[in-house]
Amino acid sequence: MPSDRPGRMAGNMGDLDAVVVLNATEPFLDSAYWYLTGCSSGTFEGARAAVLSDGSLHVFVSVLEEEAASAGAGEVHVYGTDRERKEMMAEVLRGARRVGVNYPCAAYGSVEWLKGVTDAAVSDASAVIAETMAVKDEAEISEISAACAISSRVASEIPGMLREGVTEAEVASEMDIRMLRYGGSGNAFETIAAFGPASSEPHHRPGSYALRRGDAALFDFGSKHGLYCSDLTRTVFLGEPPDVLRRAYDVVLEAQRAGIARIRAGAPAKDADLAARAVIDASEFKGRFIHSFGHGIGMNVHEPVSLSPKSEQILRAGNVVSAEPGVYLPGIGGIRIEDTVLVTEDGCRILTDYDHSLTVV
Amino acid sequence: MPSDRPGRMAGNMGDLDAVVVLNATEPFLDSAYWYLTGCSSGTFEGARAAVLSDGSLHVFVSVLEEEAASAGAGEVHVYGTDRERKEMMAEVLRGARRVGVNYPCAAYGSVEWLKGVTDAAVSDASAVIAETMAVKDEAEISEISAACAISSRVASEIPGMLREGVTEAEVASEMDIRMLRYGGSGNAFETIAAFGPASSEPHHRPGSYALRRGDAALFDFGSKHGLYCSDLTRTVFLGEPPDVLRRAYDVVLEAQRAGIARIRAGAPAKDADLAARAVIDASEFKGRFIHSFGHGIGMNVHEPVSLSPKSEQILRAGNVVSAEPGVYLPGIGGIRIEDTVLVTEDGCRILTDYDHSLTVV
Repeated sequence: MPSDRPGRMAGNMGDLDAVVVLNATEPFLDSAYWYLTGCSSGTFEGARAAVLSDGSLHVFVSVLEEEAASAGAGEVHVYGTDRERKEMMAEVLRGARRVGVNYPCAAYGSVEWLKGVTDAAVSDASAVIAETMAVKDEAEISEISAACAISSRVASEIPGMLREGVTEAEVASEMDIRMLRYGGSGNAFETIAAFGPASSEPHHRPGSYALRRGDAALFDFGSKHGLYCSDLTRTVFLGEPPDVLRRAYDVVLEAQRAGIARIRAGAPAKDADLAARAVIDASEFKGRFIHSFGHGIGMNVHEPVSLSPKSEQILRAGNVVSAEPGVYLPGIGGIRIEDTVLVTEDGCRILTDYDHSLTVV
Repeated sequence: MPSDRPGRMAGNMGDLDAVVVLNATEPFLDSAYWYLTGCSSGTFEGARAAVLSDGSLHVFVSVLEEEAASAGAGEVHVYGTDRERKEMMAEVLRGARRVGVNYPCAAYGSVEWLKGVTDAAVSDASAVIAETMAVKDEAEISEISAACAISSRVASEIPGMLREGVTEAEVASEMDIRMLRYGGSGNAFETIAAFGPASSEPHHRPGSYALRRGDAALFDFGSKHGLYCSDLTRTVFLGEPPDVLRRAYDVVLEAQRAGIARIRAGAPAKDADLAARAVIDASEFKGRFIHSFGHGIGMNVHEPVSLSPKSEQILRAGNVVSAEPGVYLPGIGGIRIEDTVLVTEDGCRILTDYDHSLTVV
């Protein structure tokens, strides 16, 4: 692990004596566990990690995970039973008066478990964890860039996969296969392939709809590389689209550029959203941009940095975020254009790369 | 949706007035949401579902998910803001005095949200939800069977993928690709490919280790079909293995058969584990079976039915469970043999199908 992640978290910890990360069973696992330990192997169900205010890291794993945990950072405590797990945690937390927990990413049952182990006051440390993890180090940027390269290659190949009659599910499956072939470690999330009117549903799951001439075909997808995600959306057309969708494409592309132009370290995170929204709301598509401009990306495809109109966050160098305005016209179709973007001191670096111009197959 | 799932849950609800299912953000989503609604489309971050004691179902989704939610069961309430989401939930829960929540599968923050919405006593309803979801209906068994068929086909092809020098990661990737090609909707979990000494780590993540002659090669994997999982482990050898691994294979296979023979509706869930463990503990490998015999399988690859020595559960027709004894010899290698099994009134049906005999490639 190239940087002192537990030390950085301790530096953000304020008056907490410890931050405890709690894994339940799949899928209720907290990526902060992998972040802190630097482990890239193992399932770690039921595992816990504790960062103390001196920057030391303790991990608690079952005997099943002992070998995998030993490859990571931290002092490893191996338990056979829940009683042992409790005793070990109690010992490490002895004397702690304030313990923070990742409330949005811990199962309710796990937090109740912790309260049974320690007399310390337990509070929400999600802001501490999010603040630490939102600033990616070089190793993380390298993984995200690799994930973006894989997704970008597939994005560039999309026009070749489209023909009249091909279904959403068929194209999505082919995209998933290619991401693996190109070195991906799995999907960052379930690939969205939405054709025709369904492209106006931002979260459509691919089905049996067969592509027709004049349809918009929207693909929102991302490969993982190692444990890290990418996120990209490309919208293309099969045959000449209705003119309203051509106009929408131009507006969304202009909105994306306007938003990206506002991304740099020190800028309010809402500025990108407001700039993109202003472009859309000045057009005939006013009010049709029905979600936020972007979100943080890392081990999870949705991380707490929020590029939304009401966000009060300030962007920092090392943040990785999506830039994804869209226009949705129920019954007709939707347009979304999305890149994964690294915030830098003087602007940003777009990590995804494909042809953004209006493409008619 | 072919069966009355909310009605069945209401029947298991005891003195609760409602059971509320809470989705946070990916991956903190509760599969009970998809189970109750029958939805197979949509992400449903932030969504909630409430089953009332009369068997009625209410779902609460953001405007982003309105179209997707309308394809599922239940009365759909669409919110634009969190305030609206709270008001709608409060209205549906009006008069409720006891509300149950899925504590292991709800984020701590989500439960705190619910406590801010209702004056009802909030308690853990995970047993109610697990009991309902553990008995699969015909539609679910059909999906799981389809997932098992895909995994079984890949299991049968494993010997053809092995040669000296191939890495764990290469074989795992090829397996993942084939599961998609054969109609899978994604991995049920990250494919485990563990060669040589690493096969003694039950949860090894595939890496750059290159297969050598004499190595055990253990593959634990499963495709999804639709939203449902399969789970299968096959262990094979490249070239003649050390004799101790041959002996271990024979013992594990015998243990698996002994365990499966104890699976039927009405049997204590621990019986299968104890029968398999007795076989292993009567051999030279006493104490080397370091996990449970099996677990429930459904939309999640680990569901609460537990075939472990201390389980107090009784198997029921419609339960789908893994049967996966193993023997682990640190520094030498491990053997695990696993099938996905449907519990029936008079025994069980093994849903996975591949050559279980000791295979030397």
